[in-house]
Amino acid sequence: MKKENKKTARGKLRVISLGGLQEIGKNMTVLEYGDDMIVIDAGLGFPDDEMPGIDLVIPDISYLVKNAHKIRGILITHGHEDHIGAIPYVLQQINVPIYGTRLSLGIIEGKLDENPPQFIPELYTVEADDVLDLGVFKAEFIHVNHSIADACAISIKTPVGVVFHTGDFKLDVSPIDGKIMDLTRIGQIGKAGVELLLCESTNAERAGFTASERTVGFSLERIFAQYEDRRLIIATFSSNVHRVQQIINASHNHGRKVAILGRSMINVIGAAAELGYIDLPDGVLIDVSDIKRYRPEDLTLITTGSQGEPMSALYRIAFSDHDKVKISPRDVVVLSSSAIPGNERLVGKIINALVKNGVKVVNDSTEDVHVSGHACREELKLMMALLKPKYLMPIHGEYRHLYANKDIGEFMGIPAENIFISEVGRVLEIDKKGARFNGSEIAGNVLVDGNGVGDIGSVVLRDRKHLAEDGLVVVVATVDMDNKMIISGPDIVSRGFVYVKESEELMKEARSIAENSLLRVMSKRINDRVFLKNIIKDDLAKFINKETKRKPMILPIIMDV
Amino acid sequence: MKKENKKTARGKLRVISLGGLQEIGKNMTVLEYGDDMIVIDAGLGFPDDEMPGIDLVIPDISYLVKNAHKIRGILITHGHEDHIGAIPYVLQQINVPIYGTRLSLGIIEGKLDENPPQFIPELYTVEADDVLDLGVFKAEFIHVNHSIADACAISIKTPVGVVFHTGDFKLDVSPIDGKIMDLTRIGQIGKAGVELLLCESTNAERAGFTASERTVGFSLERIFAQYEDRRLIIATFSSNVHRVQQIINASHNHGRKVAILGRSMINVIGAAAELGYIDLPDGVLIDVSDIKRYRPEDLTLITTGSQGEPMSALYRIAFSDHDKVKISPRDVVVLSSSAIPGNERLVGKIINALVKNGVKVVNDSTEDVHVSGHACREELKLMMALLKPKYLMPIHGEYRHLYANKDIGEFMGIPAENIFISEVGRVLEIDKKGARFNGSEIAGNVLVDGNGVGDIGSVVLRDRKHLAEDGLVVVVATVDMDNKMIISGPDIVSRGFVYVKESEELMKEARSIAENSLLRVMSKRINDRVFLKNIIKDDLAKFINKETKRKPMILPIIMDV
Repeated sequence: MKKENKKTARGKLRVISLGGLQEIGKNMTVLEYGDDMIVIDAGLGFPDDEMPGIDLVIPDISYLVKNAHKIRGILITHGHEDHIGAIPYVLQQINVPIYGTRLSLGIIEGKLDENPPQFIPELYTVEADDVLDLGVFKAEFIHVNHSIADACAISIKTPVGVVFHTGDFKLDVSPIDGKIMDLTRIGQIGKAGVELLLCESTNAERAGFTASERTVGFSLERIFAQYEDRRLIIATFSSNVHRVQQIINASHNHGRKVAILGRSMINVIGAAAELGYIDLPDGVLIDVSDIKRYRPEDLTLITTGSQGEPMSALYRIAFSDHDKVKISPRDVVVLSSSAIPGNERLVGKIINALVKNGVKVVNDSTEDVHVSGHACREELKLMMALLKPKYLMPIHGEYRHLYANKDIGEFMGIPAENIFISEVGRVLEIDKKGARFNGSEIAGNVLVDGNGVGDIGSVVLRDRKHLAEDGLVVVVATVDMDNKMIISGPDIVSRGFVYVKESEELMKEARSIAENSLLRVMSKRINDRVFLKNIIKDDLAKFINKETKRKPMILPIIMDV
Repeated sequence: MKKENKKTARGKLRVISLGGLQEIGKNMTVLEYGDDMIVIDAGLGFPDDEMPGIDLVIPDISYLVKNAHKIRGILITHGHEDHIGAIPYVLQQINVPIYGTRLSLGIIEGKLDENPPQFIPELYTVEADDVLDLGVFKAEFIHVNHSIADACAISIKTPVGVVFHTGDFKLDVSPIDGKIMDLTRIGQIGKAGVELLLCESTNAERAGFTASERTVGFSLERIFAQYEDRRLIIATFSSNVHRVQQIINASHNHGRKVAILGRSMINVIGAAAELGYIDLPDGVLIDVSDIKRYRPEDLTLITTGSQGEPMSALYRIAFSDHDKVKISPRDVVVLSSSAIPGNERLVGKIINALVKNGVKVVNDSTEDVHVSGHACREELKLMMALLKPKYLMPIHGEYRHLYANKDIGEFMGIPAENIFISEVGRVLEIDKKGARFNGSEIAGNVLVDGNGVGDIGSVVLRDRKHLAEDGLVVVVATVDMDNKMIISGPDIVSRGFVYVKESEELMKEARSIAENSLLRVMSKRINDRVFLKNIIKDDLAKFINKETKRKPMILPIIMDV
C-alpha cells in the first residue's frame, strides 16, 4: 500500500526547519505535500549575549501564516519550552489544532490559560502508538525516553515514504515510569522502510550511552544518608518530572517533608500530579510557609534556579533575599542539573554565594546527581541501525553537533551524499527520484521583548550593544536656522560614558567643540540639518576618541524654533 | 636564628590581598611588617558580563601609593597576565623595583617598551634558589611547574616566621624542560617550620593529580600521524611556551614548517626564543606570507584564539576574514586548550563556523590535547604535607575553590580555626600570639576603559546595562520658564528601543504625553527644572511600560532660552 503510494506519488515532499538560534531544526519543523502540511513542535529559544534585553526568540512563521489553510495540525513531541513555548505566539496568528500526549497538553493548557491567545485551538490528546490521519499524512506517536515524561518520536507516512522524527530522546533501560523507549516498534518501522530520518544531535559529540535516570536516584540515596542531620535544598529543572519524583521518594523514605519553591516548579509539579505523572505520598508535601514548624533535618526543599537564573528561588536564597527560606551552614544544596553552555558563570555565582555562607554544595562535578536527556553516540547509532533510513537529516543541534551526527550516519553506512545538513528555511525536497535541497522559504527568528513581538531587529540590537560598550553622549541645541542663531545650548548630557564629576573639563571642551561646529556650519549658510548633525557628530567623536580612546554613541539633536 | 627572631618579634605581620574579581588573592598580595612591605605579583582581571565595555580590571593600589616609601619590591611568581598585567598601571603611580625570573621579566619588558609608564623601574632577574634581602624580609624563589616556563613559589622569612606563597603551580614529574617542582627544597622549608601557607586553589574541586604537559605531546603525535595529509592549525595560549615547543617539535619531526599567527603569539614566542626558552630547529619557522609556497600537508599554523576571542587570528580564519589564511575542508583545527568558564559560547561559535566549512575540529572533549596548569586535590595535599603550615590561607580562586581548599587543609590536619578565607582588602595579622583577621585597608578593583583608568564606576556600569537592556528615549524641549512657554519641542528621539518606523503611533503618543506633562507643570508656575524633568520621566515611563512592557532609560533634556 505504502509502496504503491510511493510509486504513484507525483508530488514532492518538502521538509523545512523554521526558527532556531544556534541550533537548527529544533523549535519547529514543517512537512508539506501538495495541499497538506503538518508542523512538528512550536518551541522558542533563549537569547544569547548578542541580544541584550530580549526575553525570548520565536520562529518566524510567515510561511505558516501564508499557508494556514493547508495546516492539518501541530504535533508536539514533548512538553519542553524549546518545543512548545512558541504556541501562544503562533495562536495569535493562526488557528490550528494541536496534537500531543497528556503531559505535553497539560503544560500547554497552563500556558494558554495564563495568557489566552487570539485563537483557542482544539487540543487532541494522543497516546503512544496512536496514528493520526492528517490529509495525505499518517502520523504515529512512538514512546521515547527523555528528561520529561510522555515524550514521543513521530513516524509519518507520506506519499514518498516514511519520515521519522526522533524528537528529543535517549534510551533508558530502567526508566522511572517503567516505560522503555519502544525499540520494537521502531525496529518494525525500520524493517518496513524509512525514507528520511530527522535525528536529534545534541549529544552527538559524546561517546557511549547516556546513563539511566535511575542512577541519579542511587546518588540521591547516598546524599540523603550522608547528610541525614542537615536540611537539603535540591535544585533541578521543573519539567523533569521523574527527577522530582525521585527526590520526593528519597525524602519520603527518609521521613522528610517536601516543600516546593519557584513558580514554574509549583506549576509543573501541580500539573504533573493532577495528571498522575507524579505520585505524592500522603502528607509528604507541605507549604513553604510551614517549614518553620519542622526541624531542618526533616525537610527537603525542591527549587528552581539550577541554571543560576537571577530571579529564581535558589538565587534569592543564596543571596539572602528569599522571604521564607534563610540559609545556614546546616544546609546542603544539591544542584541536580548541569549548566547549559553560557550559564556557567551564573551557576558559579550562586555556588560562590552559598559556600561563602558555609553551605555545602553538591553538584554533578563531584556526584552523579544529573544525567542528560539526550542520546549519546551509541544510542544514535542504535536508532540508525534500527531504522536504516535512506536519507538522514541531523537536527536539533549546533553545527558542530549536526556534523558529528553526520559522521555517525556515515559510520552506520549512510552515504555522505544522502545526509543533509539544513539551514533555517532551507527546503529539503523528496520525490520518487530522490532527495535534494531546493530553495528556501521565509524563516528565521523573531525577537520578543516585553509586549513587543518582532519590533526589534538588527539595528535596535546593534544600538543596544553600542550603548552598552561605551555609553552615550547627547548634544542638544536650539537654533534659529533662518537667522543662523543659536537660541539655546548646545548642552551635553552623557550616560554610561564617564563619571561626569571627574570629567568636567572633558565635558566643557566637548561643549565648546559642538558649539564651534554649529557656528561653523551655520556661518556657511548651509540649511541642511542632517549635514549639520553629521558634522557635530564627527567633530565630537574625533575629540572624544582622542581624549578617551572610547567611542560612545553620539546623538546630536538640533531643534528649530 | 629564625626562632630567636620570632620570639623577640614585637611587631605584627600583615597580609593583604589587593584586587581580584571573583577570585580572591590572585592578582596582588601585600606583606607588611613595620616599615617594610613587599608585594607579590601585580596582575589584572578580565571583565565579565556585568562590566560592558570595560577592557581590563586592575587592583586598587591606593594602599601601596600611601605606603610607597615602605615598599621594598614587587616579586613576580610568573609571567601570566593575571600576575603581571597591572605592572604598567602600578608604575604610573609608584616607582618600585621588580624581581622575577628571566622569562617573567622578558615579558614585562615587552609590555613596558610598548607603553612606557611614568616610572621605569629597576628590574632584577632572579633564579630559583636565589634569596633576596628586602628589609626585614628574606624572599627565596622556588621552582614550580605551571603552564608557563620559569614559574616560582616564594618562601618569605619574616620576623614572625616563614610565609610560603605557592604562586600558581602543579607537579609535573615529566616536564618539558626537565625541571620538576623543587619538592626537596619545599620539604626542607616545611621541616624548618612554616607559619603561614598562601596556597592556590584553582583546581581544589578536582580529584587526583593534574596530568603532565608531556601527555599533550603524545596526543599531538597521534594527531600528526592521523592527519598527515592535511594542514594543521593549532590554537593555544600564547604564554604556554612548552605547549608551543611540543607543537614545533611534532611539526619538525613530521617535516612540517610552522607559521605563527596572532600578535601575542608572535610576541611571546619571540621573547621566549630570544631568551632560550624555546628551541627552534633551523628553518622550521616560516612567515605566514610564505605559506602559499608549501603544500597544506607540510604546514602547521600555531595561532591565538583558543578562547574564541572575536578579534583573534583563529576567529578571523573561521569566519573567512583573515587576509593570509583561507580555510578549506583539508584543514584540521586543534584547540589545544580548554574554554575558561564564560567563554564556552565564544569557543562554540568558532567551532560551528569551522565545521560548517567542512573543517575537522579536534578539542579536549575528544583528545587529550590540553592539561591544566594548576594543582588538583592530591597535589594540594602534597604541598600541605611537605610544608605542614601552622596557618593556611587559600588564595587564587573563587569562593567555591577557596572553601574546597579549606576542606583539603582540614583533611590534612590543619585545624579549621587556623584556616583563613580572606576578602579583598581584609588584613590577616600574625604575631607571636597567633593569627587573626583585623580590619581592612582600601582595596578593590579599578576599571580600565580605553585611556580611562578609574573614571568608570558602578553608576556608569548600571547605566550601560540599563541602556543595553531596553535602550533609550530622549525627550528634549526648549522652554521659556519665565513666560511659561514652550519654544521648541518636545521632540522624542530613541535608540535601541524599538523600530521607529513600525512604532510611529507610539512615538507620536509619547510626544503628546511629554507635551502635556510639560504644560501641566508649567501652568502650576513651578520653576523647578529637576521636578519638571522627573514628572516628564515618570509620565513617559508609565505610558511606555503600559504599551510595551519595557523600561528604556528616559532622558529628559529641558533647555531654557
